[in-house]
Amino acid sequence: MPQTILTLSTRGQGLYEFTHQAEAFVSASGREEGLLTVFVRHTSCSLLIQENADPDVRTDLLAFFRRLVPPASDPDMGWIVHRAEGPDDMPAHIKAALTQVSIGIPVADGRLMLGTWQGLYLFEHRDRPHRREIVLHLST
Amino acid sequence: MPQTILTLSTRGQGLYEFTHQAEAFVSASGREEGLLTVFVRHTSCSLLIQENADPDVRTDLLAFFRRLVPPASDPDMGWIVHRAEGPDDMPAHIKAALTQVSIGIPVADGRLMLGTWQGLYLFEHRDRPHRREIVLHLST
Amino acid sequence: MPQTILTLSTRGQGLYEFTHQAEAFVSASGREEGLLTVFVRHTSCSLLIQENADPDVRTDLLAFFRRLVPPASDPDMGWIVHRAEGPDDMPAHIKAALTQVSIGIPVADGRLMLGTWQGLYLFEHRDRPHRREIVLHLST
Repeated sequence: MPQTILTLSTRGQGLYEFTHQAEAFVSASGREEGLLTVFVRHTSCSLLIQENADPDVRTDLLAFFRRLVPPASDPDMGWIVHRAEGPDDMPAHIKAALTQVSIGIPVADGRLMLGTWQGLYLFEHRDRPHRREIVLHLST
Repeated sequence: MPQTILTLSTRGQGLYEFTHQAEAFVSASGREEGLLTVFVRHTSCSLLIQENADPDVRTDLLAFFRRLVPPASDPDMGWIVHRAEGPDDMPAHIKAALTQVSIGIPVADGRLMLGTWQGLYLFEHRDRPHRREIVLHLST
Repeated sequence: MPQTILTLSTRGQGLYEFTHQAEAFVSASGREEGLLTVFVRHTSCSLLIQENADPDVRTDLLAFFRRLVPPASDPDMGWIVHRAEGPDDMPAHIKAALTQVSIGIPVADGRLMLGTWQGLYLFEHRDRPHRREIVLHLST
């Protein structure tokens, strides 16, 4: 089955779209029908399918998660034990737990069956730049 | 591979069960073993497998998500930027991000391998009626 | 397609790793490539892929979820209706809704394509001991 590892470079917390890379992988396979599984090989970033129209939606999503899980340096987060990797690290693991590590997207007519407004994003939860590996796997 | 789009009509926020439609799709395929992938083509509703016994569980789930993510008109939500589509829209995107856009369910003996108390639900986060598309894809 | 049910015994809330059992299942199948779907047949426990290095990460994850969703006996949780099965039951359903019921993990060279620090866990949300069933399904 076609399979590849996609590497994305991130520059701090945010949503990084890779819908086009996923579409290109499916297209290059020549398959008309199937199931694309997207899997992220990390525990401090995650995957999200969200609206790709109004960028304010992404701004608000980031703001919500920052309010729900503030940095470990925040007075409300004094209970956090795991601090060795910086104040953004444990909140990153928590945000990853609250979102998805894998997503399955059906394919028809050689295309991902995403809705009109759906974009596929890597959700980076760390502050510093990272190289992130995403596995794309196309099955029947 | 068998694949179909199931359309559900929703009438406001709530959990809409479609276990029977998913079972019927698997049954009609004639397959004994496989993997059913359920994928929702929207960003303001999502998928949930939850208890189908005591309806109070669904009541409490809805109450929890409404408390965690109140409408944009709530005094606590003044930070929300994306307001053009109504006070329920941005909270809907957030609730969708906190739940699942796709679920994979193994099939054996021609049936979904759900636990005794598991029901499959569309989780509608918008107030007004919507027509929602769910892709059902059965692979090996 | 290879498929099995893995049974895990839990002893209260916590993260129970089963990466080795999932690896052993894939290895025994003799398949070099494919997709492992992991599905939990319950609504008061869930699945999580998280860091398997520093155990403090798991401690903090549990603490976060307990703070976000306290027991029904907590003064803040007076709104909970479903109380018949104990103060840990409804919070368990909510925590399950916030995490994942199924995860798809691609396989290459006969191994799960997990990242270096990724472990696969059953996330038990109930206080008393339980026997939990997890379906492992390997497709192409």
